[in-house]
Amino acid sequence: MQELEERIQSEGTVKEGNVLKVDAFLNHQCDVRLFDRMGAAWAEHFAGKKIDKILTIEASGIGIACVAAQHFGNVPVVFAKKAQSINLDGDQYVTSVYSFTKQKEFPVIVSKKYLNAGEHVLLIDDFLANGKALHGLIGLCREAGASVTGIGIAVEKGFQGGGDALRAEGYDIDSLAIVDAMDPATGEITFRH
Amino acid sequence: MQELEERIQSEGTVKEGNVLKVDAFLNHQCDVRLFDRMGAAWAEHFAGKKIDKILTIEASGIGIACVAAQHFGNVPVVFAKKAQSINLDGDQYVTSVYSFTKQKEFPVIVSKKYLNAGEHVLLIDDFLANGKALHGLIGLCREAGASVTGIGIAVEKGFQGGGDALRAEGYDIDSLAIVDAMDPATGEITFRH
Repeated sequence: MQELEERIQSEGTVKEGNVLKVDAFLNHQCDVRLFDRMGAAWAEHFAGKKIDKILTIEASGIGIACVAAQHFGNVPVVFAKKAQSINLDGDQYVTSVYSFTKQKEFPVIVSKKYLNAGEHVLLIDDFLANGKALHGLIGLCREAGASVTGIGIAVEKGFQGGGDALRAEGYDIDSLAIVDAMDPATGEITFRH
Repeated sequence: MQELEERIQSEGTVKEGNVLKVDAFLNHQCDVRLFDRMGAAWAEHFAGKKIDKILTIEASGIGIACVAAQHFGNVPVVFAKKAQSINLDGDQYVTSVYSFTKQKEFPVIVSKKYLNAGEHVLLIDDFLANGKALHGLIGLCREAGASVTGIGIAVEKGFQGGGDALRAEGYDIDSLAIVDAMDPATGEITFRH
């Protein structure tokens, strides 16, 4: 998606440790007009596929998923939670994921009420790096007996390999920008086309 | 907002300890069509007011705020973060808030880049109970020199007093449903009109 690549080039910053900061428009400050066009792009990619629900993970995926859902017939969005809360009770699907950005292990929780056998689920998230968060969400879907119809990602860090491993497993991933290389010294970002 | 009250009546559940669960449509599974109509309701209430930005707090506020922003000329949405992350760097406004639902103290963080002096800010959140989270966001705005134009809330638990205290301080709060009483034994919910 050319617009997203241009925003990453002009407003993103590359930091040591494989960190790409896009908090000006994607995951701290949110450009909802961009989110809307991202949703349109995913809707075009997944046109004709049956999608009953969008599953994402708190926090940065939520805004993108909710705006994008408007391009999928306003299907429900469910966001997996990263911590127990008194608002979560009853039966839950729970797995554990290591976060690259938070540098710790955290639980990923979805109430069993909101993920059901036979549902066709689109996963959406802001970033795909090593794929650990997505594997967590895929595991929750498998446990529920739901099928993963596709995966919509804003920014894939292609050089970390998580996306290509999931593609090799057969998942249909639509990453709107794939960064194949980035250099913290020069700030240079190379996209896959 | 009649539709929201009806959804709370039909799908909400009252738990011991002043807990109102609305995770079927508001803060775990998200009904984005409802979010859109909530945004329209706030836009009507705050019509004619200058709003440059929407500020919310992760996680449950984000989806509501991003969909609602489409009714405010697609202004940027900034969500305050509740934990440090390697994605957050540079100067930050930080305060500390006690969470009723998580039952612990947590930091509330906004990068100084995304909250600026002179900006007119609309605060949006899913719940208003004792008002601690909102006071945190208001404090960050004050520190930044931004002004709080108004506050849009989905569900206010009126009997916990946070909303009325903020109204007494002069804030223009548009709560789309105000619960004045709820009974965990019978499940009965009484709304303020």
